Amino acid sequence: MCAIFGVYNHAEAGTEAYLGLCAQQHRGQESAGIVSCNNGVFHAEKGMGHVADIFSKRKLAKLLGTAAVGHTRYATAGETALKNAQPLTVDCNKGVLALAHNGNLTNAHEIRSRLEASGSIFQTTSDTEVILHLIAHSRESDLTAAISEALNQVEGAYSLILLSGNRLYAIRDPRGFRPLAHGVMPDGAHVVASETCAFDLIGARYENDVRPGTMLIAALDSDGAGGVKEERFAEALPPAACIFEHVYFSRPDSLVFGRPVYRSREALGRLLAREAPAAAEIVVPVPDSGTAAAIGYSAESKLPFKWGLIRSHYAGRTFIEPEQSIRDFGVKLKLNPVREILEGRSVVLVDDSIVRGTTSKKIVRMVREAGAREVHVRISCPPTISPCYYGVDTPTRDELIAANLSVDAIREFIGADSLQYLSLDGLHAAVEDSPTSRFCSACYTGEYPTNLVQESQIGRCRG
Amino acid sequence: MCAIFGVYNHAEAGTEAYLGLCAQQHRGQESAGIVSCNNGVFHAEKGMGHVADIFSKRKLAKLLGTAAVGHTRYATAGETALKNAQPLTVDCNKGVLALAHNGNLTNAHEIRSRLEASGSIFQTTSDTEVILHLIAHSRESDLTAAISEALNQVEGAYSLILLSGNRLYAIRDPRGFRPLAHGVMPDGAHVVASETCAFDLIGARYENDVRPGTMLIAALDSDGAGGVKEERFAEALPPAACIFEHVYFSRPDSLVFGRPVYRSREALGRLLAREAPAAAEIVVPVPDSGTAAAIGYSAESKLPFKWGLIRSHYAGRTFIEPEQSIRDFGVKLKLNPVREILEGRSVVLVDDSIVRGTTSKKIVRMVREAGAREVHVRISCPPTISPCYYGVDTPTRDELIAANLSVDAIREFIGADSLQYLSLDGLHAAVEDSPTSRFCSACYTGEYPTNLVQESQIGRCRG
Amino acid sequence: MCAIFGVYNHAEAGTEAYLGLCAQQHRGQESAGIVSCNNGVFHAEKGMGHVADIFSKRKLAKLLGTAAVGHTRYATAGETALKNAQPLTVDCNKGVLALAHNGNLTNAHEIRSRLEASGSIFQTTSDTEVILHLIAHSRESDLTAAISEALNQVEGAYSLILLSGNRLYAIRDPRGFRPLAHGVMPDGAHVVASETCAFDLIGARYENDVRPGTMLIAALDSDGAGGVKEERFAEALPPAACIFEHVYFSRPDSLVFGRPVYRSREALGRLLAREAPAAAEIVVPVPDSGTAAAIGYSAESKLPFKWGLIRSHYAGRTFIEPEQSIRDFGVKLKLNPVREILEGRSVVLVDDSIVRGTTSKKIVRMVREAGAREVHVRISCPPTISPCYYGVDTPTRDELIAANLSVDAIREFIGADSLQYLSLDGLHAAVEDSPTSRFCSACYTGEYPTNLVQESQIGRCRG
Amino acid sequence: MCAIFGVYNHAEAGTEAYLGLCAQQHRGQESAGIVSCNNGVFHAEKGMGHVADIFSKRKLAKLLGTAAVGHTRYATAGETALKNAQPLTVDCNKGVLALAHNGNLTNAHEIRSRLEASGSIFQTTSDTEVILHLIAHSRESDLTAAISEALNQVEGAYSLILLSGNRLYAIRDPRGFRPLAHGVMPDGAHVVASETCAFDLIGARYENDVRPGTMLIAALDSDGAGGVKEERFAEALPPAACIFEHVYFSRPDSLVFGRPVYRSREALGRLLAREAPAAAEIVVPVPDSGTAAAIGYSAESKLPFKWGLIRSHYAGRTFIEPEQSIRDFGVKLKLNPVREILEGRSVVLVDDSIVRGTTSKKIVRMVREAGAREVHVRISCPPTISPCYYGVDTPTRDELIAANLSVDAIREFIGADSLQYLSLDGLHAAVEDSPTSRFCSACYTGEYPTNLVQESQIGRCRG
Repeated sequence: MCAIFGVYNHAEAGTEAYLGLCAQQHRGQESAGIVSCNNGVFHAEKGMGHVADIFSKRKLAKLLGTAAVGHTRYATAGETALKNAQPLTVDCNKGVLALAHNGNLTNAHEIRSRLEASGSIFQTTSDTEVILHLIAHSRESDLTAAISEALNQVEGAYSLILLSGNRLYAIRDPRGFRPLAHGVMPDGAHVVASETCAFDLIGARYENDVRPGTMLIAALDSDGAGGVKEERFAEALPPAACIFEHVYFSRPDSLVFGRPVYRSREALGRLLAREAPAAAEIVVPVPDSGTAAAIGYSAESKLPFKWGLIRSHYAGRTFIEPEQSIRDFGVKLKLNPVREILEGRSVVLVDDSIVRGTTSKKIVRMVREAGAREVHVRISCPPTISPCYYGVDTPTRDELIAANLSVDAIREFIGADSLQYLSLDGLHAAVEDSPTSRFCSACYTGEYPTNLVQESQIGRCRG
Repeated sequence: MCAIFGVYNHAEAGTEAYLGLCAQQHRGQESAGIVSCNNGVFHAEKGMGHVADIFSKRKLAKLLGTAAVGHTRYATAGETALKNAQPLTVDCNKGVLALAHNGNLTNAHEIRSRLEASGSIFQTTSDTEVILHLIAHSRESDLTAAISEALNQVEGAYSLILLSGNRLYAIRDPRGFRPLAHGVMPDGAHVVASETCAFDLIGARYENDVRPGTMLIAALDSDGAGGVKEERFAEALPPAACIFEHVYFSRPDSLVFGRPVYRSREALGRLLAREAPAAAEIVVPVPDSGTAAAIGYSAESKLPFKWGLIRSHYAGRTFIEPEQSIRDFGVKLKLNPVREILEGRSVVLVDDSIVRGTTSKKIVRMVREAGAREVHVRISCPPTISPCYYGVDTPTRDELIAANLSVDAIREFIGADSLQYLSLDGLHAAVEDSPTSRFCSACYTGEYPTNLVQESQIGRCRG
Repeated sequence: MCAIFGVYNHAEAGTEAYLGLCAQQHRGQESAGIVSCNNGVFHAEKGMGHVADIFSKRKLAKLLGTAAVGHTRYATAGETALKNAQPLTVDCNKGVLALAHNGNLTNAHEIRSRLEASGSIFQTTSDTEVILHLIAHSRESDLTAAISEALNQVEGAYSLILLSGNRLYAIRDPRGFRPLAHGVMPDGAHVVASETCAFDLIGARYENDVRPGTMLIAALDSDGAGGVKEERFAEALPPAACIFEHVYFSRPDSLVFGRPVYRSREALGRLLAREAPAAAEIVVPVPDSGTAAAIGYSAESKLPFKWGLIRSHYAGRTFIEPEQSIRDFGVKLKLNPVREILEGRSVVLVDDSIVRGTTSKKIVRMVREAGAREVHVRISCPPTISPCYYGVDTPTRDELIAANLSVDAIREFIGADSLQYLSLDGLHAAVEDSPTSRFCSACYTGEYPTNLVQESQIGRCRG
Repeated sequence: MCAIFGVYNHAEAGTEAYLGLCAQQHRGQESAGIVSCNNGVFHAEKGMGHVADIFSKRKLAKLLGTAAVGHTRYATAGETALKNAQPLTVDCNKGVLALAHNGNLTNAHEIRSRLEASGSIFQTTSDTEVILHLIAHSRESDLTAAISEALNQVEGAYSLILLSGNRLYAIRDPRGFRPLAHGVMPDGAHVVASETCAFDLIGARYENDVRPGTMLIAALDSDGAGGVKEERFAEALPPAACIFEHVYFSRPDSLVFGRPVYRSREALGRLLAREAPAAAEIVVPVPDSGTAAAIGYSAESKLPFKWGLIRSHYAGRTFIEPEQSIRDFGVKLKLNPVREILEGRSVVLVDDSIVRGTTSKKIVRMVREAGAREVHVRISCPPTISPCYYGVDTPTRDELIAANLSVDAIREFIGADSLQYLSLDGLHAAVEDSPTSRFCSACYTGEYPTNLVQESQIGRCRG
């Protein structure tokens, strides 16, 4: 996962991009970058780590210009190098281009092989770089036409922000896998972001989403008054918005795909309570991601909501472990049980997912050691059985516990007294606005909305 | 406020001290230090900032020995220099001594003047240094006797951990203002800490509190099997445990003064709901410190609990503000309202205190801008009207809004539709275990349990 | 200017490359990088600044493998970004390639335009990147053949080290502008470096220079015993070794173009004394670069050699200047005059060049203020009148004082009592081994050994 | 060894102190500190490492005020902690005092024992701290009188700069072991420094030395016009200026004890040539400390001076050594031989001292490996046979090679063809201005100018 952010016609574009990334820090903590454009001159700053640590006042001061694009990147095994930090900036026959990508192209491997055969060189291992090659190779002299031509060759998930010397493009793939919202600032500047929580911080107003298969184009060279225009580069395909954004990934205070995430989360908890009640005494969330669903579960079940696990404010930092290893050290640094609440109680523990099962096992053990009499685990979505090829960093099928064990075997593994997941129908009921589904739930069903070549060839590198 | 931590008879004493400070990081983020003792040789590491940033693997490796004492310090205006970072280590006729202090001595100024007149030199501005001078000046040749003599000269609040070449002392003043808990590790090592959440992280079991007017003494030079002995250095005075630890300062998962903090917090919320009901639709906490009280308020009032303000996981970091200042920037980086919850609703906002009033004003404005119809603020303690002279970093009387304005004037200032505080009786009812109060609530009453000289002379520097 | 270094068939290739760059640090202090190859897997580490500051023990430990290539880069205005730090690493149809370049291509601009027109994208502003594109575009499937084809398209100065998954290439252009020496370590490993001082540090023995128009190829995949083979990719053209390496740039303890630099430097001083004697009392070098020539001048003139200007050991660091600016602050931090030596004396000041004239002016003033009666400046080469297009970072013609003023006007500008340069004949006499010149001295003559397009189009970016 | 620097009545006192320390960086690289005083308010900044690395623009901006004192400290085994970094700042009945010390007290141990017995506590292991205790303990209410009383109790070597809220004192012990020069800036501000090279950088003019047994006192509170007055606190004792300052420690461009160091160094070389001629072909210095003596040796002997060992500009940095250790790695990073000069030659190698002998052994080996036929080592002082108790960091007697081996045995150890030292008479002849010696040469004679208690009790900690 990643976050992207773009702004144009703003006097402090670089600093706004910085704030837009700060607000979306939860979407990617491996690296971050911002590219600004000042009268056709580009400036880039990138680094490994958190946004607040990468950008100093001195660096932001260098990011001159009225347009900027930013990106934060999620840590994925192996490919954590600075060279893959985005936005990618290149010089080509279409001028200088800076590109930020959230998503994953499913045919990047094929295109890359073809381009390499014809003599192209690649400086990153990111699938994003192929888009820039395709734009450069296009015979269209107009940049917008070249982008359209390029996009019609790639498949998969992409929300893109592309900055040229005089335009900023905000683009979504024809199925709209990943979010991309459009907002307006009080002074008229336009902004685009993965999540609307970025707009809240900088005081922008959400307008609408970039529509699948279209690009918003803002001209930098005009008087700025002209604003943006929308251009369609492909027919919209059946919608496939990532349901996992609502289940787990996005912040609850964001609108994602135009819908409040909090609304979905609480509804997931309510439906879970109906489908999977528990003969227990209290409802305890695994904070912070399980909190909203637990509130819904409590409200529906009438079991009291209790703050039985405390999340440390310093959970994101790196700590040194003693040599005499402490059992469950990593989880203990992040969460601590409240014995006063748990002791002697039968507890419903609400979480948003079980991936490998090891963390859940540690949390259940911790809750029991704090005195809980019974632990009933409730998960606010169905079992995760298939990897995502559209930009979410799920592990391989072999590592997904639900792809390999039955629910009862998982229950035994994590040591719970009972374990229940929300049904697929429940999931859709909780997040849909209309009878027809607009979401991709392939991670729960294995039914992918695009044709996939051999999994091993997709190259799960992600922008 | 500060946190202190001590450990002895443990092979990795330095690293355990580090973890003990990590768990108590919320008690002080200005500076931190650890001193270990290895066969009579002391090693010290200190720094400014967060514990996780100060101590590297290389530094911890230098902290050899089986005993260690650690300290984290709260940022207070003016006196933020490294020289004041604790533990303080000195060499004197009683040998090398390392001292960590949580609290504030009310007669430090007088003693310091007297010592300076007789030729003593001071290298810090901390009140803690006078204790070391008094120990060194004692004619008692035995260290324990010298410590007793010194403590009988100081007044005020002190929980202390003192490490000598062959003993570790854990000490509480005769009124027991500040907490100090004693625990045992599975391998028999003894630990002391301000809060028991430190024990949870390292797997220690809470035994009891160090009793007011006594010191626990652990001998390092013996076989270690002897464990600890308790020695009384002063008659216990009427108890005056800091009630603010239960209202705000401690972590809800800690036992403080032997009582679960979470129990007090939820009870504060329940009593608040009874005393100060609101004709509203939902209860929203100001996270994280208001969460438990809000849960109690919701349970008692039957108004649904809603997660209407999201606290950023990155709130503790430093961010760069744009020049075109954003209104309420600081608060927005920490908290973001959930429009989905707040829009059109009448909201009870539960918080644990109003100090200067400016933050509350910004939060109320933020909640209104997210669409709340009415905002009813409920505070889970009485108005804070007096500064603390026992170790809590409250502002001066002039800055305390409740010392200067009526409740209704405060309501107007923060822009709420209604504002109510918990009564003093309610406060005590929520935290007491017995009919007789054992708490100091001077910050709410102005009735101080010790004689105070002129305020201006107390020198509100703190250990 | 830059330094390059390569090593293969060595167990600690990454660390040897690090040492090879440390020894050549004087050739470039802007950025540095090392790429190693371990069984076909590449690892890269780069950074801005000094070699010793960029590479930690932890980073070197990551540079696994038996082959490595390193590069340090000289600070040039504008293009100081990390993205231009070398070695450049790309993935293409010839596999992964890492390339380090010392020199400057005179037709890079044309080739880049052509490549961009055909759809290539560029991620750096370095001329080095075009070489990689040309290799990738070659229809030759064999890497060696592809490199040959690429090199036959570029013009100008290039000493290159290129690392592929199973070979290491060391290459010099057909005129041999820039140095590249080949050495052997006691354990048989082969090394290549810009200067032989790198061999001295790691205990390697100088073998010979890579011959102009050839490449040394070492196979990594074999048993390593096979060593290296030489392959010619172009006919050697009339030699044009950079004379400035002997005048100023190289370390005096290096062999450069097979000739001891110290021998040249001292000879420059001796001939200068013959051509430009001075009626003075002492000879003082501008350390360190003028030292060897001053020793020669003193020996020939019989005037005593005196250490009248002290160079600070900390000259390379960055210092903060007071607001009340100190006259000649920058020069004073680097050099301090010895009044004891200079007071009342007539001094010959020997330096290796006058570029803009401002530093010389400050030094002359400093020497006078220390009491010198007369200051006779002697320069151990002719006036620098033309920019270099082959890899030396000379300023533009407009900034070169000797391109704009007569010798007497320069004398007046710098405030010397007399000023004399070595003649062109003297210069050649001092550095040549045979009657026929093998050096390029275009910076002193304006006669360039290659055809040049419009100066403004050369794009004086450098590898 | 250490450097001290003081300035008063200057608008940028903190920054001038920084520059004064930069110029004297060679005297101590372990730690540095500056304390400034602004209308009675003190500010301190200290750190480990080089001056240029410790002080940022931000830190210098905090050092407000018109008076400042600075100190750099030499790395000595064991006691390298930040707590010992100077200036030491304390608060006592004489007000706030900041003290910087160059030298070593020979009765610090006794005084400290006595003070500890009477209840004083010590926060450093530095002998400097006892001076502050003695000042505080003085019954004299006037600060100047109290300082006098304190100084009359200590013995040994001390040049001191002491800053109070309204005065700056510059003090030298009655024998004048260590230097302390007094200068005036163009705007009238007064400065004091260990070496006059500090004056050159900031544009101050040397006035005279602080006279042994006296203190210069500058009043800060007046209009500044009053300047400084001198006050004697003790009768001058027979002078004992440290001769090693002229042999090795000071910069050659400084005046030390009022005499140009360069003059002494060159004279040492000349006398060495007369006393210890060599049947050799060239004279080569071990740079930089042996350079001036080698020039003198060359001039006197008529053997040509050659720059046969190159000192790296980056010698002061820390480098990572490969695991396959390189022979003489440390020396090779600092010095590299010039084969062109040394090959086949008989060489006189001029150095300023042999301490343990190991470095000399490596240099001789390096020179031989570069082809020298014969190596004749000449040392510009007598054999070092006794430790210094007055502030120079010589090793213990057991480690001093000349305290344990004959000159011929040392020659054999270092592998030279011949080895000769300058005689004691020659040493004095080279540095004295008058027939009566004013220098301490105890390190060469073992005859100490003060009574010493048991060596083991002196506690060779140094200010």
